[in-house]
Amino acid sequence: MLEELKRQVYQANMELPKRGLITYTWGNVSGIDRETGYFVIKPSGVDYSSLKPEDLVVMDLNGNQIEGIYKPSSDTPTHLELYRKYPDIGGIVHTHSPEATAWAQAGRDIPLYGTTHADYFFGAIPCARSLTQEEIAGEYEKNTGLVIIETFEQRRMNPMYTPAVLCTNHGPFAWGVDAADAVHNAVVLEEVAKMAAKTEQINPDVKPAPDAIRDKHFFRKHGKNAYYGQLTDHREV
Amino acid sequence: MLEELKRQVYQANMELPKRGLITYTWGNVSGIDRETGYFVIKPSGVDYSSLKPEDLVVMDLNGNQIEGIYKPSSDTPTHLELYRKYPDIGGIVHTHSPEATAWAQAGRDIPLYGTTHADYFFGAIPCARSLTQEEIAGEYEKNTGLVIIETFEQRRMNPMYTPAVLCTNHGPFAWGVDAADAVHNAVVLEEVAKMAAKTEQINPDVKPAPDAIRDKHFFRKHGKNAYYGQLTDHREV
Amino acid sequence: MLEELKRQVYQANMELPKRGLITYTWGNVSGIDRETGYFVIKPSGVDYSSLKPEDLVVMDLNGNQIEGIYKPSSDTPTHLELYRKYPDIGGIVHTHSPEATAWAQAGRDIPLYGTTHADYFFGAIPCARSLTQEEIAGEYEKNTGLVIIETFEQRRMNPMYTPAVLCTNHGPFAWGVDAADAVHNAVVLEEVAKMAAKTEQINPDVKPAPDAIRDKHFFRKHGKNAYYGQLTDHREV
Amino acid sequence: MLEELKRQVYQANMELPKRGLITYTWGNVSGIDRETGYFVIKPSGVDYSSLKPEDLVVMDLNGNQIEGIYKPSSDTPTHLELYRKYPDIGGIVHTHSPEATAWAQAGRDIPLYGTTHADYFFGAIPCARSLTQEEIAGEYEKNTGLVIIETFEQRRMNPMYTPAVLCTNHGPFAWGVDAADAVHNAVVLEEVAKMAAKTEQINPDVKPAPDAIRDKHFFRKHGKNAYYGQLTDHREV
Repeated sequence: MLEELKRQVYQANMELPKRGLITYTWGNVSGIDRETGYFVIKPSGVDYSSLKPEDLVVMDLNGNQIEGIYKPSSDTPTHLELYRKYPDIGGIVHTHSPEATAWAQAGRDIPLYGTTHADYFFGAIPCARSLTQEEIAGEYEKNTGLVIIETFEQRRMNPMYTPAVLCTNHGPFAWGVDAADAVHNAVVLEEVAKMAAKTEQINPDVKPAPDAIRDKHFFRKHGKNAYYGQLTDHREV
Repeated sequence: MLEELKRQVYQANMELPKRGLITYTWGNVSGIDRETGYFVIKPSGVDYSSLKPEDLVVMDLNGNQIEGIYKPSSDTPTHLELYRKYPDIGGIVHTHSPEATAWAQAGRDIPLYGTTHADYFFGAIPCARSLTQEEIAGEYEKNTGLVIIETFEQRRMNPMYTPAVLCTNHGPFAWGVDAADAVHNAVVLEEVAKMAAKTEQINPDVKPAPDAIRDKHFFRKHGKNAYYGQLTDHREV
Repeated sequence: MLEELKRQVYQANMELPKRGLITYTWGNVSGIDRETGYFVIKPSGVDYSSLKPEDLVVMDLNGNQIEGIYKPSSDTPTHLELYRKYPDIGGIVHTHSPEATAWAQAGRDIPLYGTTHADYFFGAIPCARSLTQEEIAGEYEKNTGLVIIETFEQRRMNPMYTPAVLCTNHGPFAWGVDAADAVHNAVVLEEVAKMAAKTEQINPDVKPAPDAIRDKHFFRKHGKNAYYGQLTDHREV
Repeated sequence: MLEELKRQVYQANMELPKRGLITYTWGNVSGIDRETGYFVIKPSGVDYSSLKPEDLVVMDLNGNQIEGIYKPSSDTPTHLELYRKYPDIGGIVHTHSPEATAWAQAGRDIPLYGTTHADYFFGAIPCARSLTQEEIAGEYEKNTGLVIIETFEQRRMNPMYTPAVLCTNHGPFAWGVDAADAVHNAVVLEEVAKMAAKTEQINPDVKPAPDAIRDKHFFRKHGKNAYYGQLTDHREV
């Protein structure tokens, strides 16, 4: 079932080692079919070198495994909470990519320092609060999803305008309209995280870019007045 | 039309991913034919993996699209202003290469710390001022070009002696006698930006190199007394 | 003799250049056969490009060379002490990988800043004390092993829970249930070392992750309640 | 003439791009035949991709070009001074490798922080003083050689024990018993420079390693009591 979605999610998973975002099995991508409400996710701890499309696991939004001989990624409950809350999300990715993970370990939002960031993220990339001891001891992966949602709700942020988050002491999650778009955003996040750390090293007193730069570049690429790229392949968010 | 120029500009564009200067479609190269006054530029948002010479767009210096089925790069008005102002410029490149972009985001000139820099750039690589809110809201890409020109004119700098600039909160532009030379300078800029940041990390009190070093190395490679390289392939600036 | 072990240790050695952990001959891997008490180790100063499985040297736990035309790695006495003291260790690796070596040269433990670290190491990765002048002038490589053991004993650490150490002014040793596992841990150590340095650069006041995060992630992957990965290929420590 | 030496020097030159030490043509290697007193050096500004053994230039120690259709490297007078002063030097290399160049630009010696350094360099790698305005305006490349020699003589250093130097605001020179050994030392210098900068970032108060570590590791690999490597391929310095 969902052969085409499995193929897409498989391709998106394989993009992670190709783009240098992961070491060993440290990452997972999922994609959802909104008609059936089923999502497809990487199995837990399986090597990318041996992964095949048919190894992917099919889950429903109540956390039932619908298909697959393997156990799904241990982060599945985090993906599930995000899919349930935000119907526009079509794909999700989690990695331990080093630059973004360093910001997560540092417990800091990534400030918007320039147009590379603003082309993809409408403001700082938020760092979610630490989980409490109870949240960790309990349904840890589910609570990770809930704390991400709490972050976006409390800050009144649109997750499709800022399609990534850092989890304190852990690492990044990114998402998009589908699995490929989620991985694309994870690649950009890593690049933006690297540039932001270098920026602060070069100028420790640097301030975030003006809002006018953020607005100009974000809406050059997104929404009905976008003019970047060719009309035929432009994705409106 | 301009088949040879298209081939050169195509090759120069393809050098960007090969040299590690770009992620996805974050860059563009153009080259000009000064006889016709037409310049050739990468189309907007097209992947390097699928780019072909015939996809390149031909523009005139009034901003009219002369040929091509695609929209030109959204940065076309910046290229145009530079070509109009400086007749010695034969090729222009824009990237978001991480080291140079970090300096641009930090809002700082790159000081001349050594001979690697002086072999190509006759002094600090300038960081142009931020655009005003009006300049951003108006003809943003054209104003980016005008602020670059303002920087070189106010500082009385020769753009052929310092063939690169950083745009605050944005990234670098570089240029040269043709498209290949522009990309060559962009590669050097990235290397120089990386070394300069490391230099300041190793010695936070470092001072720029003496003018005598700058003069010696720059004129070892440029002008009528140059003695670096073989006479037959030496380009005088 | 020990052909299968030699093959495994050879493969583990060849993983070092492939994973970017070594320059020239700066590293060595060994693996032990606990039945015979013999261990197999890389010969000293032999290039990885010309190394063959039959070049590996067989040693016993009294330091006698049992087989092999080459001299064993100069670090052999360090490996020997660790094998004698800790019967659960099945493979050992030493490298000068740059990120871990920088922490060793800095003389600091690597703090546990996040889940990437906690998935593999149950707490900070210790930096063993400097050797005294007498220890250096005497049986240097043996004393290196003894100081590693002293570190784990004094801090009451389980070497199978924290399968790596930094030797001050020197570099890392890592180990595991076999040679492949040791190299896997050395790769993770390098990644964790890189992330930790970046984390401190981004937030100089950062504190180690809470113990609850350490416990959750370590035991998600290790011990009888582990639930990461597939049951069939899960290694219990 | 000197076909075998040309082949060796050609191979050593080609090792530079392979090891990631150079961008474009920013480097040159030479090797000397002490019987004839001729040395072979890369031509100036020729691309590595098109370089052939027969393109190399043969020079004598008075600076006369003995053979070759190309001009020799512009740094030839620096090589020449080193060959004249130190008869044990058999090969010399100059690069702008980024990590070593950053230390040169910072104007600092690279402290000996660990065994990676001590395995090859018997103490800090010196940074030669800046050239005076007169030295730069005069025979610049020759004076660069003289200032290197001044550094080793004033500090009473043995150039075969510390086979590299940093030239302030410029970059590194390294040397060895032949061209291949010189390049080997340049690769190690770059790695050591990278580790030293990271070490200081991790621990800004770090002190150099004790002399006992320096002596132990250096003499483990050099001199009559060396015991690293196999006897048959060990080079005594």
